[in-house]
Amino acid sequence: MDTPSSLRERLYVIVFQTDTVAGRRFDKILLLIILASLVTVILDSIDDVHRNYSGLLAGIEWAFTAIFLAEYLTRLYCSPKPLRYAFSFYGLVDLLAIVPGIIALYYSDAQYLLIIRVIRMLRIFRVLKLSPYLKQAHYLLEALRGSKQKIIVFLVSVSTLVTVFGTLMYVIEGPEHGFTSIPKGIYWAIVTLTTVGFGDIVPKTPLGQVLSSLVMIIGYSIIAVPTGIFTAELANAMRGEQLRHDCPTCAKKTHEPTAAFCSRCGNALFPKAATKQA
Amino acid sequence: MDTPSSLRERLYVIVFQTDTVAGRRFDKILLLIILASLVTVILDSIDDVHRNYSGLLAGIEWAFTAIFLAEYLTRLYCSPKPLRYAFSFYGLVDLLAIVPGIIALYYSDAQYLLIIRVIRMLRIFRVLKLSPYLKQAHYLLEALRGSKQKIIVFLVSVSTLVTVFGTLMYVIEGPEHGFTSIPKGIYWAIVTLTTVGFGDIVPKTPLGQVLSSLVMIIGYSIIAVPTGIFTAELANAMRGEQLRHDCPTCAKKTHEPTAAFCSRCGNALFPKAATKQA
Amino acid sequence: MDTPSSLRERLYVIVFQTDTVAGRRFDKILLLIILASLVTVILDSIDDVHRNYSGLLAGIEWAFTAIFLAEYLTRLYCSPKPLRYAFSFYGLVDLLAIVPGIIALYYSDAQYLLIIRVIRMLRIFRVLKLSPYLKQAHYLLEALRGSKQKIIVFLVSVSTLVTVFGTLMYVIEGPEHGFTSIPKGIYWAIVTLTTVGFGDIVPKTPLGQVLSSLVMIIGYSIIAVPTGIFTAELANAMRGEQLRHDCPTCAKKTHEPTAAFCSRCGNALFPKAATKQA
Amino acid sequence: MDTPSSLRERLYVIVFQTDTVAGRRFDKILLLIILASLVTVILDSIDDVHRNYSGLLAGIEWAFTAIFLAEYLTRLYCSPKPLRYAFSFYGLVDLLAIVPGIIALYYSDAQYLLIIRVIRMLRIFRVLKLSPYLKQAHYLLEALRGSKQKIIVFLVSVSTLVTVFGTLMYVIEGPEHGFTSIPKGIYWAIVTLTTVGFGDIVPKTPLGQVLSSLVMIIGYSIIAVPTGIFTAELANAMRGEQLRHDCPTCAKKTHEPTAAFCSRCGNALFPKAATKQA
Repeated sequence: MDTPSSLRERLYVIVFQTDTVAGRRFDKILLLIILASLVTVILDSIDDVHRNYSGLLAGIEWAFTAIFLAEYLTRLYCSPKPLRYAFSFYGLVDLLAIVPGIIALYYSDAQYLLIIRVIRMLRIFRVLKLSPYLKQAHYLLEALRGSKQKIIVFLVSVSTLVTVFGTLMYVIEGPEHGFTSIPKGIYWAIVTLTTVGFGDIVPKTPLGQVLSSLVMIIGYSIIAVPTGIFTAELANAMRGEQLRHDCPTCAKKTHEPTAAFCSRCGNALFPKAATKQA
Repeated sequence: MDTPSSLRERLYVIVFQTDTVAGRRFDKILLLIILASLVTVILDSIDDVHRNYSGLLAGIEWAFTAIFLAEYLTRLYCSPKPLRYAFSFYGLVDLLAIVPGIIALYYSDAQYLLIIRVIRMLRIFRVLKLSPYLKQAHYLLEALRGSKQKIIVFLVSVSTLVTVFGTLMYVIEGPEHGFTSIPKGIYWAIVTLTTVGFGDIVPKTPLGQVLSSLVMIIGYSIIAVPTGIFTAELANAMRGEQLRHDCPTCAKKTHEPTAAFCSRCGNALFPKAATKQA
Repeated sequence: MDTPSSLRERLYVIVFQTDTVAGRRFDKILLLIILASLVTVILDSIDDVHRNYSGLLAGIEWAFTAIFLAEYLTRLYCSPKPLRYAFSFYGLVDLLAIVPGIIALYYSDAQYLLIIRVIRMLRIFRVLKLSPYLKQAHYLLEALRGSKQKIIVFLVSVSTLVTVFGTLMYVIEGPEHGFTSIPKGIYWAIVTLTTVGFGDIVPKTPLGQVLSSLVMIIGYSIIAVPTGIFTAELANAMRGEQLRHDCPTCAKKTHEPTAAFCSRCGNALFPKAATKQA
Repeated sequence: MDTPSSLRERLYVIVFQTDTVAGRRFDKILLLIILASLVTVILDSIDDVHRNYSGLLAGIEWAFTAIFLAEYLTRLYCSPKPLRYAFSFYGLVDLLAIVPGIIALYYSDAQYLLIIRVIRMLRIFRVLKLSPYLKQAHYLLEALRGSKQKIIVFLVSVSTLVTVFGTLMYVIEGPEHGFTSIPKGIYWAIVTLTTVGFGDIVPKTPLGQVLSSLVMIIGYSIIAVPTGIFTAELANAMRGEQLRHDCPTCAKKTHEPTAAFCSRCGNALFPKAATKQA
């Protein structure tokens, strides 16, 4: 394929860049195609639709797989460093969006793997003007990172609670009330602690109901813990940290956000104009 | 209709204004009528009531429609700019509150559209002294607007999660356990992730229950995200009564509404021209 | 009853005061009796217990009513202003704790009204050292009062949502799927929006499930609103408001919490020692 | 056992210390054994597994009990103060992890008590670098301690609400709709107020459904209270790394950890004796 280098470069601008008109238009069309392909997979899973239109839908699915294959090859072709693209996160996702369509030829259930294309929908942030979203996502990630250790403490505590309560309920209620094993008891404890409450397994004995009440009150109260952690960290991340300003006297670089004087040397950080003070 | 202009003006004061005694009394009576009309629609939907009083209720409903029609025409008549009113938000809602009553003559199910009158209930804020509520609603909207991008990031992530988990559950549990299609699986994932947990569709296989537990824990934890976002933004919006002006010396961004000097560095926020100071 | 005034006064100290040893002991015993009386009512409602011990329990209940009657008469007798006590909040609750026991002689279901004695349990705060709890309750009430208008805006919006969605679901799903009337639809909408999700009424049609998903996502998201309002207000109430300090130059009395200089006159709020500055 | 003292000391380093390579490796292996023992108990509770492998699992369980016994004796042996270890929190948990295995010889249900070993999993924080987690757990506990009184006020209010609503529902709905006693009513009220909503007991009468709606709205709203309390306290605790010292001039209460002068008024936080300054 000895196409002139200029075609490759023009393709690169369209396929990879997002700040040109052509690039944005390409991304928009691609998003619509991904969405359409997802809808096809979802529709095909509905019994009535599958019975009447399975041939048509399979054809459409094939067309989409062909389009994505063409797109993948184009990306490989016009990327300055094809290998680096192929092993990047986006490159792997792009590949994964094609493979199940080919496997589905031999093993029809594989078509559900096509749902992995939903990950390609994350490209949507490239169409909505990218940068402010990145900043917001950055705040959210910052808050999550800051609360990582607190969240691990929280999850370990929840796991311990759930194991203990699940076992207790298995012993108290027993198989005749649906608690057929400890894993089932733990499943029930998770359903209850998270306040989901399916109602497929419910306590029948008075003691079991007392214990359930305890689990529910605990679940209802400790939901405050992740919320509190996250809110406090997010407020921290959004406030920005310290005042960055060199003290004119001792050159201390960061200060409390509301500082008027340097806390090391006691001199004003922002001295008044000399004339006024005289 | 060559009524003297003074009647039109007096009507205008009563019908449109809220800071006069007559205007407030009119709004109160109108609210009661809207409420009564809503109650009529709701009562008529109850089987026992409908069987015994359907004639009576239809009559009452007609009376209300007539009253609203009269009110609408009055508003059109006494408004200084009738067309502008007719195409304003309130004008359209007022019209929509009448139309279904007329359609219901021919197609009886249309009467349920009358429930749109509930939107007219928003007038209640005009009766409760308006302005402090507007200010509070303003804070809430400000907080929502400030968190718009974070919320979009959040909703896109939730949609992706729900699609992936819904498909996985469809593949794992299959039609024999109620997961008859991918949309059904997505519906189940939403029911579970939001911790609603109807219990109409529940996982039966061990693998399905493990996956459900994961969905529930995620749902229970990420509820912290919108809460954290909203709280941090609301706190921001409430602090927002402050004067937003960068101090020319120390760049402090918000100040007391009446501030003349910066409370951090003591310099004038709005320095006079140098010549004047000399 | 010509008892010496000193007995009356001694009774007053025991019955009404909480900062003496005798007064606190009296309150503790009273709390135990109230608790025992509540347990009796609750036990009597259990079928097995009622069948076997109804005579015994009725006797015990009578004894408690007699004790509370004696206590009430004592309070009336030793209170310096009996009428004022009788019509105070606590006086009325004390009376209401006796009346149902007497009515129950003639109409046996009235005994359940005895549960009103649970309100007397609020005395528990008098036993746990009173004042720090009052301060905390004060913060909570302060936060609630500060958020009153925001909460009304929130509740009106929720009511509107619930009415509209309830009616829509009634029209879409109809009586054959359990949505037998608009009030039932509204009940379902409340069950769903609050993420309770009993599962006694669930959508069966695809359109109904799409609408339900919307209601659930809304419910899951707007729980952030009351939390955000309350947290922001509570943080406000706990932070205390402004810095109270008279400016030495212009006597401005309140300042931003972090102010170093007066925002009116620009002079230092806390001038440095003269010797140092020289 | 006259082993040289050096072996005891070497054992002590391995078994008790966490900052040496050998100590950390020992803790990691121990964690894996605890986890494996938990999995064994859980697997044994599943009917299918129990039927086919009960002998094998009992043997494995025995092996684990033997290992833990050996570990316990080693700890006793190499601890410098064996009695102090035996009666410490960890010592008691270590003992409790062995006893049920021995009791299970005579009374087979006792094996479920082995689940208490889950508490030993808390050692996981010793493997993940310990100290930052301790600090985070400290923040969380600090926040909980600070909000203790507010939480008691909250729990007392919730208990009162739940008792009153449970009794009301028992009177309104009655045994024919599943509300067979007041405790059952209270159980229902807890299930509903915490938004769990199992759906095993649901209101059937219109009045009951109106009351339920009230309970749900209350539950949905007051979840804001613990969240608000906890968030505000946690934010406080996290700010708590600051220096707590009232500035002698302006009474500012918290400062940067290394502050020498107050960042608000610029005066020394810890003024020297007057004579020295002169």
